[in-house]
Amino acid sequence: MNTTVGISNRHVHLTIDSYNKLFNNEPLNIVKELSQPGQFASDKKVILKTEKDIIENVRILGPLRDYDQVEISKTDAIKLGINPPIRNSGDVNNSEKITLIGPSGELELQSGCIIAARHIHISPKQVIDFGLANKEVVKVKFNGEKGGIIDNVYLKPTEDSFFELHVDTDDGNAHMINQGDTCSIIMDDEF
Amino acid sequence: MNTTVGISNRHVHLTIDSYNKLFNNEPLNIVKELSQPGQFASDKKVILKTEKDIIENVRILGPLRDYDQVEISKTDAIKLGINPPIRNSGDVNNSEKITLIGPSGELELQSGCIIAARHIHISPKQVIDFGLANKEVVKVKFNGEKGGIIDNVYLKPTEDSFFELHVDTDDGNAHMINQGDTCSIIMDDEF
Repeated sequence: MNTTVGISNRHVHLTIDSYNKLFNNEPLNIVKELSQPGQFASDKKVILKTEKDIIENVRILGPLRDYDQVEISKTDAIKLGINPPIRNSGDVNNSEKITLIGPSGELELQSGCIIAARHIHISPKQVIDFGLANKEVVKVKFNGEKGGIIDNVYLKPTEDSFFELHVDTDDGNAHMINQGDTCSIIMDDEF
Repeated sequence: MNTTVGISNRHVHLTIDSYNKLFNNEPLNIVKELSQPGQFASDKKVILKTEKDIIENVRILGPLRDYDQVEISKTDAIKLGINPPIRNSGDVNNSEKITLIGPSGELELQSGCIIAARHIHISPKQVIDFGLANKEVVKVKFNGEKGGIIDNVYLKPTEDSFFELHVDTDDGNAHMINQGDTCSIIMDDEF
């Protein structure tokens, strides 16, 4: 079963309270619709700060959520000197602390920074149609000179999903794959 | 068959002429012996420069060689805005151009920047003993939360080698593996 690859650069999800602290109640405008319906890249960016270093120009994705979440790669984590856990989106309790700097303030998150687990957006009907009903995770294969197979790719079934693999920039760069490339979900359990 | 993982950060190999241009004939001192016999991290660093960006503090490895070679990751390449090919060490013809800046000069390499192919240092005897005599490349498996299998890992048999997988920081960070971790060479051709 083939699907397309979406590569997620580092980004931030915010609650309305956190957003307003950082951006002083300015409107959160859509710059680009993302592949998952309703999700968008906004016009707002923050600086990520730790005791060791900063990363600038990190985009806020919309719409606002009911939790704060900063998704970075392991490469980013090494630069920042922190050790975020690998988590599914929304599972932010007891994750890594990080500070966000916006034009109107700083926000110290005691928890909220994660490395996003590899995942596939898929509809409940596709889960059944593709014979994946008994699976929480699958393996996915990439072709090419730096191809390979990645483990522990979580299925995330939602009704309105666009069927797509999401990996971070480390997985993308390690395998030399690009946004929109094709990959294949491995359908057997042999390896 | 298990071996250990060595993760190569970006680094530079130089000829004596290139070295002397950048470092004005200063001695190249050993800071740390590397796992492959005779190879060492030196006390000298350069800046990598392209039209788009720079990367500072890139270490010269010794001893000096008969070619100039800059090994970076795809993540580095994106930052620098260049597109180096995936190559085995020493195969630098028609690779990417890059500029090096040292304390005593700049060196514009018209070719020499590569992304190193995944490889395994191994002795000719081990190649035979491990049943790998008919192979140019193998697959290697990493365990863990972001584990997986990487393709196109070149066997590099040399008499004095220390048996070890070498991958770059993108492969290391994507799979959340560290220097000295254990990985397994996949011995069959089934996948």
